[in-house]
Amino acid sequence: MTPPKKARTTPPYELLYWPGIPGRGEFIRLVFEATGTPYTDVASSKKDGINEVLACKAETLTVDSDGNPPAFAPPALRIPGEGKGGKSLVLYQTPSILSYLGDKLGLAGEDEAEKHWVLSHALTALDLNNETHDTHHPIATGKYYEDQKEEALKKAADFRENRIPKYLGFFERVLKGNEKHGEGKYLVGGKLSYADTTLFHVVNGLKFAFPKEMEARESEFPILLSTFYPNVEGHGGLKEYLASDRRQPYSMGIFRHYPELDRQ
Amino acid sequence: MTPPKKARTTPPYELLYWPGIPGRGEFIRLVFEATGTPYTDVASSKKDGINEVLACKAETLTVDSDGNPPAFAPPALRIPGEGKGGKSLVLYQTPSILSYLGDKLGLAGEDEAEKHWVLSHALTALDLNNETHDTHHPIATGKYYEDQKEEALKKAADFRENRIPKYLGFFERVLKGNEKHGEGKYLVGGKLSYADTTLFHVVNGLKFAFPKEMEARESEFPILLSTFYPNVEGHGGLKEYLASDRRQPYSMGIFRHYPELDRQ
Repeated sequence: MTPPKKARTTPPYELLYWPGIPGRGEFIRLVFEATGTPYTDVASSKKDGINEVLACKAETLTVDSDGNPPAFAPPALRIPGEGKGGKSLVLYQTPSILSYLGDKLGLAGEDEAEKHWVLSHALTALDLNNETHDTHHPIATGKYYEDQKEEALKKAADFRENRIPKYLGFFERVLKGNEKHGEGKYLVGGKLSYADTTLFHVVNGLKFAFPKEMEARESEFPILLSTFYPNVEGHGGLKEYLASDRRQPYSMGIFRHYPELDRQ
Repeated sequence: MTPPKKARTTPPYELLYWPGIPGRGEFIRLVFEATGTPYTDVASSKKDGINEVLACKAETLTVDSDGNPPAFAPPALRIPGEGKGGKSLVLYQTPSILSYLGDKLGLAGEDEAEKHWVLSHALTALDLNNETHDTHHPIATGKYYEDQKEEALKKAADFRENRIPKYLGFFERVLKGNEKHGEGKYLVGGKLSYADTTLFHVVNGLKFAFPKEMEARESEFPILLSTFYPNVEGHGGLKEYLASDRRQPYSMGIFRHYPELDRQ
């Protein structure tokens, strides 16, 4: 039997994230998919895998049996053999996991400056991701949307009118400033980074959650929406993944389509 | 004349941040102060320094004359001589700047695992920082508190009842799990990291913004509030800085004391 490509040179990466939604786990999945790196999505591929997700964030956990701290929240990444004394390493926080994998999988820029720009741009895209979530949960994460709908209508209006153009305008300028190297296709340098995959997913989610708003603004951000976005979408391993049923549909996670929150 | 300690071995670090508030710039200042590293706080120490802060985030900027991308928002860090081709390097996003300086100044853990845990914990403390900000601005960053006070009362109640104990309980467990190495004084390993200085500042800000809530919860998080917090406060360079007038008072920034948002 032929092992899958790269299987002999990468450790057995295990993603610990909720099943059934793209969520923040999707930012991690995209770097694996873009590089053709094998990984296990524990909750969706192992029987009782959800229990392993719950265990890494258990409110009684102080340190695990391999010496890792608890995770505040999923996603976490577990890498057997890469921790202290050859045990499993467990990392949490999306940007920290992306920074780790970016270094290992060649998605973190070419030098120290680019490495930090990639992290900075990814953090900014993740801030936009978080603000998108807060449009339907402006008061309390633990309460239903229906219980904070009135506030959500106000928050979403500000988000559409002020925050979306501020963020997308910023990334349009970053792409413009890097055009000599990136030709509008990459935020940093001349090749794909995890900043690109992260921004791509956030824009994809915005198109799902706010279709009218995004359509109305299509022409305002031509490099971002007409060059960058389709380029990442068509990139090597991503194209096949995005069209597959492994790419989970949006539902009740970060990106939700409530027509009343969109442009009217 | 004797140059200040470390002046010969560190580049001329320049912090680009708003004057007059601790803000997110404070997380950067603390790593300089904790390590006795000279730096220039551009807006408060140079005539027209504020213009340099505004320039790095100007909404017309695509790339600066040294090849750096624009900043989405302050803080930014400028380091003459450390950029491409010996030009200035400009980084933005607090966690990215902390990760860069942590590596350079010895505040980022002892190995690859610790380095990522330090980043992860700092990111979590910064998430708490952001949620604190949102208690007084739940609807729109660009509007006055008074225009979203009704929503702020709801948001702050959820924050006090659910989010503060969730975050502080998490850090209490991390400190407990690292007690063998850190003795309750450090989140990761046996020495100070930028995760410690970052968490310290957020707890300090919470004590200012929600004094009654924090006092009522004092005994719930004994390692965090009675060992960790006073230890960072009394740490080498920080002790003197925190007592000096260079430590700016809280005012209309992230941490604000609105008595009506505190425990009644």
